[in-house]
Amino acid sequence: MTKAAVFGTGSWGTTFAMILAEAGTQTVLWGRRAEIVEAIDARHENPDYLPGIKLPPALRATTDAEHALRDADFVVLAIPSQSLRGNLAAWVPHIPRRAVLVSLMKGIELGSAKRMSEVIREVAGVGEDRVAVISGPNLAREIAERQPAATVVACADQSVAERLQAACHLPPWFRPYTNTDVVGVELGGAVKNVIALAVGVSAGMGLGDNVRAMLMTRGLAEISRLGAALGADPHTFAGLAGMGDLVATCASPLSRNRTFGENLGRGMTLAEVVAATKQTAEGVKSCEAVLELARKHDVEMPITEVVVGVVHDGMTPSEAGVLLMSRTPKPERYGV
Amino acid sequence: MTKAAVFGTGSWGTTFAMILAEAGTQTVLWGRRAEIVEAIDARHENPDYLPGIKLPPALRATTDAEHALRDADFVVLAIPSQSLRGNLAAWVPHIPRRAVLVSLMKGIELGSAKRMSEVIREVAGVGEDRVAVISGPNLAREIAERQPAATVVACADQSVAERLQAACHLPPWFRPYTNTDVVGVELGGAVKNVIALAVGVSAGMGLGDNVRAMLMTRGLAEISRLGAALGADPHTFAGLAGMGDLVATCASPLSRNRTFGENLGRGMTLAEVVAATKQTAEGVKSCEAVLELARKHDVEMPITEVVVGVVHDGMTPSEAGVLLMSRTPKPERYGV
Repeated sequence: MTKAAVFGTGSWGTTFAMILAEAGTQTVLWGRRAEIVEAIDARHENPDYLPGIKLPPALRATTDAEHALRDADFVVLAIPSQSLRGNLAAWVPHIPRRAVLVSLMKGIELGSAKRMSEVIREVAGVGEDRVAVISGPNLAREIAERQPAATVVACADQSVAERLQAACHLPPWFRPYTNTDVVGVELGGAVKNVIALAVGVSAGMGLGDNVRAMLMTRGLAEISRLGAALGADPHTFAGLAGMGDLVATCASPLSRNRTFGENLGRGMTLAEVVAATKQTAEGVKSCEAVLELARKHDVEMPITEVVVGVVHDGMTPSEAGVLLMSRTPKPERYGV
Repeated sequence: MTKAAVFGTGSWGTTFAMILAEAGTQTVLWGRRAEIVEAIDARHENPDYLPGIKLPPALRATTDAEHALRDADFVVLAIPSQSLRGNLAAWVPHIPRRAVLVSLMKGIELGSAKRMSEVIREVAGVGEDRVAVISGPNLAREIAERQPAATVVACADQSVAERLQAACHLPPWFRPYTNTDVVGVELGGAVKNVIALAVGVSAGMGLGDNVRAMLMTRGLAEISRLGAALGADPHTFAGLAGMGDLVATCASPLSRNRTFGENLGRGMTLAEVVAATKQTAEGVKSCEAVLELARKHDVEMPITEVVVGVVHDGMTPSEAGVLLMSRTPKPERYGV
C-alpha cells in the first residue's frame, strides 16, 4: 500500500491529505499544534481551517514528524513558503531514502529568489526525480466540499509523476494531469499573484471585463516569456497550473492579492492598504523577486514592472495604465 | 489618407468605426436603417446600440453601399454572420480592386460550417492577402466609454496586418497586436461561445471557481487541438483572441451563452430556456457545427460533446459532469 506523510494542517494541506486518504493512500497528516492534530485524529475535523467538513476516519494526524515519515513513499509539504528551509532541515534525517518530496507551496523564497522545489533539492540533497510539484486551480474549500477539480502533478521523471497521479486520483471528484515541466508549473503558481494584484488595481479603478481579460492574457504572456528564459515549456502556462490557476485566483473575491490591488485602485495610499490588510498578500512580496529574475534574464515584463511601481515606488494607478497602453505596437507573440 | 467603409451599425461596428475615425482614418459607416444612419451622421449618436455615447463628427454614415465603398482601402464587415453571404454578394461589384476585407464577425456559417473569412474569400473571390480578421476581448460598450482595450489584427500577409494595425491604433485607448494566423484568431472567437455555455451550466449548478477555471482551461485546450488540426498555430489560443476573449465572455454577466447555460444548470428544461431567451445564444447553434468539424478531423472535444448532449440531446448537467470527470487520467498536453 502506498504511504504518504503530509506536512501542514492548513486548508490545502488538510484537503490534499483527505484526497490521498480517500484515493486509498495510507496518509498521516503532521501538524505543529496539538489541539488541531487531536481534532483531526479523533473527531475527523479541522475546526480552524475547514470547519464543518467531515474528514475520512482513515486519515490520521500526529505532531511527531519521525512517526509521520516512517516508510513514507510521498512526503507532501504544505507549510508557509518562507519557513520551508528551516523546517525541512529538521525533517530530512527521518525521510526514507526513496521517498519523493512533493511541494504544494506557491511562493518564492525571499533573498535567494528560489522556487520551492529548488529549496527542497538543496536542503534534502535529492535529485530531480525525487521532487514533484502539485499546482492548479485548487481553492481548498471548494474541493473539501466535494466540488470537482483538476490539478497538475509535475515531476521531471514521468513515471514518478504517474505514481503520484495514481495516489491522488479520485474520480469523479479530483482529476490530476501529469506534466514533466516542474519549472513551468511552479512559476505559474508563484507569478499569478502579481497579475492578480494588477487585476485588482484595474477593478478598483472601475474598469471592466476587457481590461481584466487583457491583463490576464498579456500577464500570462509575460509569465511565459520568463518561463521560457528559465527553461520552462511555454505550453505549460496555457494549462491548469498557468491559465487555470490565474483564472481561479483573479475570479475569487477571497483572493488577498486581488483585494490588496483593489484598495490601491480605489485611491488608498500604500500605507493605508497595508494597515487594512491582515494577512500578507504574497504578490506584494514576490513581485520584486520576479522582476529581479526578469531583469537578470533580460525578459520584458511590463505588467510586473508597473505592479512593482504602484506597490513599492509610488506610481499612481492611472500612470501605470497609460504606461502599459502607450508601448509601441507589436506582434502578439514575441520572446517565447 | 487611409479610407475605410464599415458595414453594420450594431454596437461593435459603430464602436470600431469610431476607433478608425479617431485614429485618423477617413471612415464611412453603412447601415440599412435610415433613422440610425441619420442619427449617426447628423447627431453623432447611435441611439439604438450606443445610447449616450458621443461619436466623432468626422465619422460619416450612409445607406448607400456604393458611396461608402468608393476608394475604400479597408472594407470592414460587422453584420450578422448568417446574413454575410447574401449581403456581401450585392456589395462585391463596388469593392475597389485592392481593398482589404476585414471581418469583425464571430460566427460559423450554418450548413457549410465555414468560418467568416472563408465565406468572404469565396463570395468576393479574393486571395488570403486581402482578407483580415479582428478579434479579442472587446465588449463594445466598454470601448465606446473609452476604457482601454487590446485586440488582434490577423492577416496571412503581415504587411497588410500592419497597415490595418496602424489604421486602428489609438494610444492609449485601443491597442491592436498583429498575428498572421487567421484560422486561429477566427476559431477562438467562434468556439468560445460553446465553452461559455458550459461555464454557465456549472454556475447554474452552484459550482465555484475551480470548476469554472477547469472548464475554461480544458476548453481552451480542446479549441487548440481543433485549431491545430485545421492548420492554426496553437499559440494563438493563449493570446487575446483565444484566452482573452474567452475570459471576457465567461466573466460578463451580459453574455447570452453564459445565461443560457446557467438556466439549464438550474434545472430548467431546454424548452423553458429557449422560451426565456429573447436573442439567440450563438453557441447553441454553433456547438453542433464545431463538433461535426471535430469528428471530421478526429479531434477529441469532450466539453463540446457534453454541451451538445445537454443542449440538444437531453443529457442532464450532472450526467455531463460525471462524464467529464471520469475520463481516463492523461498527461496535460496531448493532440497539439
